[in-house]
Amino acid sequence: MALIPTNMNEKRKTQITVIGDSKPELETERIALEVGEMIGKLGAIAITGGRGGVMKAVAKGIDKAGGICVGILPTNEFSESNAYNHIVIPTDIGHARNSITVMAGDLVIAIGGGAGTLSEISFAWIYGKTVFAYEGSEGWSKALANQRLDEKRRDQIIGFKSVSELEKKIKPLIRR
Amino acid sequence: MALIPTNMNEKRKTQITVIGDSKPELETERIALEVGEMIGKLGAIAITGGRGGVMKAVAKGIDKAGGICVGILPTNEFSESNAYNHIVIPTDIGHARNSITVMAGDLVIAIGGGAGTLSEISFAWIYGKTVFAYEGSEGWSKALANQRLDEKRRDQIIGFKSVSELEKKIKPLIRR
Amino acid sequence: MALIPTNMNEKRKTQITVIGDSKPELETERIALEVGEMIGKLGAIAITGGRGGVMKAVAKGIDKAGGICVGILPTNEFSESNAYNHIVIPTDIGHARNSITVMAGDLVIAIGGGAGTLSEISFAWIYGKTVFAYEGSEGWSKALANQRLDEKRRDQIIGFKSVSELEKKIKPLIRR
Amino acid sequence: MALIPTNMNEKRKTQITVIGDSKPELETERIALEVGEMIGKLGAIAITGGRGGVMKAVAKGIDKAGGICVGILPTNEFSESNAYNHIVIPTDIGHARNSITVMAGDLVIAIGGGAGTLSEISFAWIYGKTVFAYEGSEGWSKALANQRLDEKRRDQIIGFKSVSELEKKIKPLIRR
Repeated sequence: MALIPTNMNEKRKTQITVIGDSKPELETERIALEVGEMIGKLGAIAITGGRGGVMKAVAKGIDKAGGICVGILPTNEFSESNAYNHIVIPTDIGHARNSITVMAGDLVIAIGGGAGTLSEISFAWIYGKTVFAYEGSEGWSKALANQRLDEKRRDQIIGFKSVSELEKKIKPLIRR
Repeated sequence: MALIPTNMNEKRKTQITVIGDSKPELETERIALEVGEMIGKLGAIAITGGRGGVMKAVAKGIDKAGGICVGILPTNEFSESNAYNHIVIPTDIGHARNSITVMAGDLVIAIGGGAGTLSEISFAWIYGKTVFAYEGSEGWSKALANQRLDEKRRDQIIGFKSVSELEKKIKPLIRR
Repeated sequence: MALIPTNMNEKRKTQITVIGDSKPELETERIALEVGEMIGKLGAIAITGGRGGVMKAVAKGIDKAGGICVGILPTNEFSESNAYNHIVIPTDIGHARNSITVMAGDLVIAIGGGAGTLSEISFAWIYGKTVFAYEGSEGWSKALANQRLDEKRRDQIIGFKSVSELEKKIKPLIRR
Repeated sequence: MALIPTNMNEKRKTQITVIGDSKPELETERIALEVGEMIGKLGAIAITGGRGGVMKAVAKGIDKAGGICVGILPTNEFSESNAYNHIVIPTDIGHARNSITVMAGDLVIAIGGGAGTLSEISFAWIYGKTVFAYEGSEGWSKALANQRLDEKRRDQIIGFKSVSELEKKIKPLIRR
């Protein structure tokens, strides 16, 4: 997979998917909020699964920075969205929407996470996305940081210990 | 179905899906461009299937008006997007993405159209969306204007003969 | 599209999808029951959307003939299946499962039908399936019989007025 | 989640999903073949992702025992099926079909596996399925055996070291 997203049209900004717990620890939520804010400052669009916890914190963070968050929901109910998404895509395809959530990112950032996040990290790997995983919270992101999921890719899931470390790693990958 | 979208969060603007031919007549394309521009002027977000023809014209129109167009693609390739989408959601679920394209709109506007558009009008009806159909181009939009698809809904697909007529009908439904 | 299904492996029998109303007239239900029975006698597998009405009648019919009916459900609940399906595939992808229901047939038979059936006929057309439509019940099957949905295909939806007429038309298309 | 499947209709037999590598070691393939044969002898239906490796071995095994294997494909091409599936469900929803593959099982058996299998184990956990994981081959099945994926469930993924051990564990869960 290419680290530098290709075929981006002139209008489209870099899209960054953030995945993680819907009911995280407060500290994890704080990280997600900072990640959202960072994405906004870098001029990228945030994509999430549209609901609570990490997803909501990311939306709130990018909103603070004047950016846009797109929430991709498992149901067909706009009302399931958290209060901070700027654009909402209901899908009615259940947890299979996890596949779309990560596919819509040029990059994927994972923070904490249970089985839902694990399915998303798997899909991100399958669809060739570069994945960054937070090492500071319990869950699948920490467990899989600096590892590979199988032999089909030579790279690894890239661990990060702070938002400033993540920013340094992501900045060169933002096209404009 | 409610004409006035409910449960919109504070951040989310009205989302309007536009569906239609990927290879339309020039005249149909011109209408789609005007519809895109109108959506932008009304302060709403445009949603399309992300590819050529009517979809591209809508994106170009709303771009002209300074608005945002979200393209929801059937494949997992960002490169399949037309050059005017501001946000691109690849799905890799084939034509089943037609279901999501219409679900993501508070309202749906149909212009011309073959079997793909017909599947989208059907889904818009099933998911309770208010549908506006252009009566000026050949295709399923014209054929189904001012009709109902089955007895489960009491309303009809609402025909329109010009973009100014459509604007008058849509304006009261835009929340802000 | 090819009338004669290709690439069938040695083990797989011809699969025939039947679509139609979940709450049909009694007469329509009777036709569906006969169609199911006919499919069983021809040695083919029946595929449906797994629920009530035409879907249930087809399953009951093929069961009577000692055949197998596969029900493909919109939800993730086995319990949503009618009582006659021999194999049940829950999908949790909502009405988008209509796409899979018709894709799983080498041939598609439509009986009656509202907006859901209309979306299925559209998908069958898009995915190149040969579609047979019953002309004896009100609904989209009758309305579209002997017509084409767009210019991308040269053939038509093939109307039939009785199960014996349908059997004559389908028999040569069953591989074994 | 219930170990004993509920709401099974009178006609439907127990459905068992088997997941695993498309390019496994020979030894892993042998286990999959035995598992397929065992499922057939127990009178259950096998469900797989429909392609090569473990999926093909399971289909071959159950065919030997006179049973039925249903292959659920990611593409819309019947020809992508292995040569042993008795029923083929093309989906055209890409890797998101992994969600349906496990949902269609009353039970799920995992053998070996890379990122694709990992996404399937995650979905099986999310959808409340009882999962059995082979401890004798490298891959995610071994890595996750006798563990839980998150705190939302109290049970674990159940490890097994031989097909006879698996048979003892599964037999009481087959309804008829």
